[in-house]
Amino acid sequence: MLERDQKLLDRDQKIKLYTYWRSSTCYRVRIALNLKGLDFQSKPVHLIKNGGENWHKEFLAVNPQGLIPALVDKGTVITQSMAIIEYLDECYPDYPLLPKDIQARAYVRSLAQIIACEIHPLDNLRVIAYLQKKIAVDEGEKSDWYLHWIREGFKAFEIQLKHHSPSPFCFSEQAGLADLFLIPQIYNARRFQLDMSDFPRLSEIERNCLALDAFMQAMPENQPDVEY
Amino acid sequence: MLERDQKLLDRDQKIKLYTYWRSSTCYRVRIALNLKGLDFQSKPVHLIKNGGENWHKEFLAVNPQGLIPALVDKGTVITQSMAIIEYLDECYPDYPLLPKDIQARAYVRSLAQIIACEIHPLDNLRVIAYLQKKIAVDEGEKSDWYLHWIREGFKAFEIQLKHHSPSPFCFSEQAGLADLFLIPQIYNARRFQLDMSDFPRLSEIERNCLALDAFMQAMPENQPDVEY
Repeated sequence: MLERDQKLLDRDQKIKLYTYWRSSTCYRVRIALNLKGLDFQSKPVHLIKNGGENWHKEFLAVNPQGLIPALVDKGTVITQSMAIIEYLDECYPDYPLLPKDIQARAYVRSLAQIIACEIHPLDNLRVIAYLQKKIAVDEGEKSDWYLHWIREGFKAFEIQLKHHSPSPFCFSEQAGLADLFLIPQIYNARRFQLDMSDFPRLSEIERNCLALDAFMQAMPENQPDVEY
Repeated sequence: MLERDQKLLDRDQKIKLYTYWRSSTCYRVRIALNLKGLDFQSKPVHLIKNGGENWHKEFLAVNPQGLIPALVDKGTVITQSMAIIEYLDECYPDYPLLPKDIQARAYVRSLAQIIACEIHPLDNLRVIAYLQKKIAVDEGEKSDWYLHWIREGFKAFEIQLKHHSPSPFCFSEQAGLADLFLIPQIYNARRFQLDMSDFPRLSEIERNCLALDAFMQAMPENQPDVEY
């Protein structure tokens, strides 16, 4: 088959998401897809087993950076969770994840970026692995590090939320971009026993989000590649 | 004066950027403002002197999170550099920082996010301070950490650039969103003596960007609060 024909064929295929059940950046994208009611195929990539399947040639052919999530849609591979989510919002405008007003969009993006730029990068797998292997931190230091960045970021998030009138979600009456960044981070916080009672607004938003199918179905425990 | 009158007055004022000369997230925003030819007032906030002016009540009244950059425009404070830059692109569409095509936008955003989510968060001031104070890393370990994340991210960036046909900038014939994230990160890399010869495409893009006034005028050395 000619390469061009293959590309045309790919355009008609279902959206594919290369994902790992426990990855919180994948969890974000799963929520976005669910909120928009988009049908997609999960392609599990195990980040730990077999030296990390993300480094196997099958996956490197999809994303040569070896990073998940990677979304394949209309014959194009898109990487970086925030870029994927903005793409979905532009390409599939039903159920918008961002408000229309320009100032409000900036506000919602700034909330999402507290998670994406101030918390998650410090606590992801490869950073923790570096701390353990190269700097030989012990279990206590590792846990202190992990929780420190979540606490600092969640404090900033709660402060930022006070700028706007309270709503059931981070912004407005409908779950959107900021919520889908927040919930996977709270999931991680709970895994590491963070006391969430210091963050009453975040806990309230969490309750409201987890009452929605879009969030529940995206949870690590509900993925085809879940392990216990 | 009534609060509402004050707000109306603010709307007519020049854009204000709370900035620190050496902060690479502020450097990004300065390039974006310059590329768009927007006139703005720099409001320096010293991150080190006096226990960090970002924690003084004058600045906390602007951004209670104590983080720079913070942009004030039309009576609204916007935080997080990526949210600020997307805001500027939506509010001031002349000289667009993102391409029009939805797939191309995702590609450019994914490049920017390699810097914003994979490199910079690991190397910023407060993370290095934590490593030194709480984990007692020595100078060698600090420098290894700093350069490790830049190298990993730059490798990913170069790989990602190979997806598209070569151009003088990260994407197309015009400097845009990905370039204005990349250049401040290369500036930091050079400060810490990273050997850039491993990254020929990035070095070429750097040369092309630094030939532009918008980038030169945004450089740390050309800020009113520069120190030597």
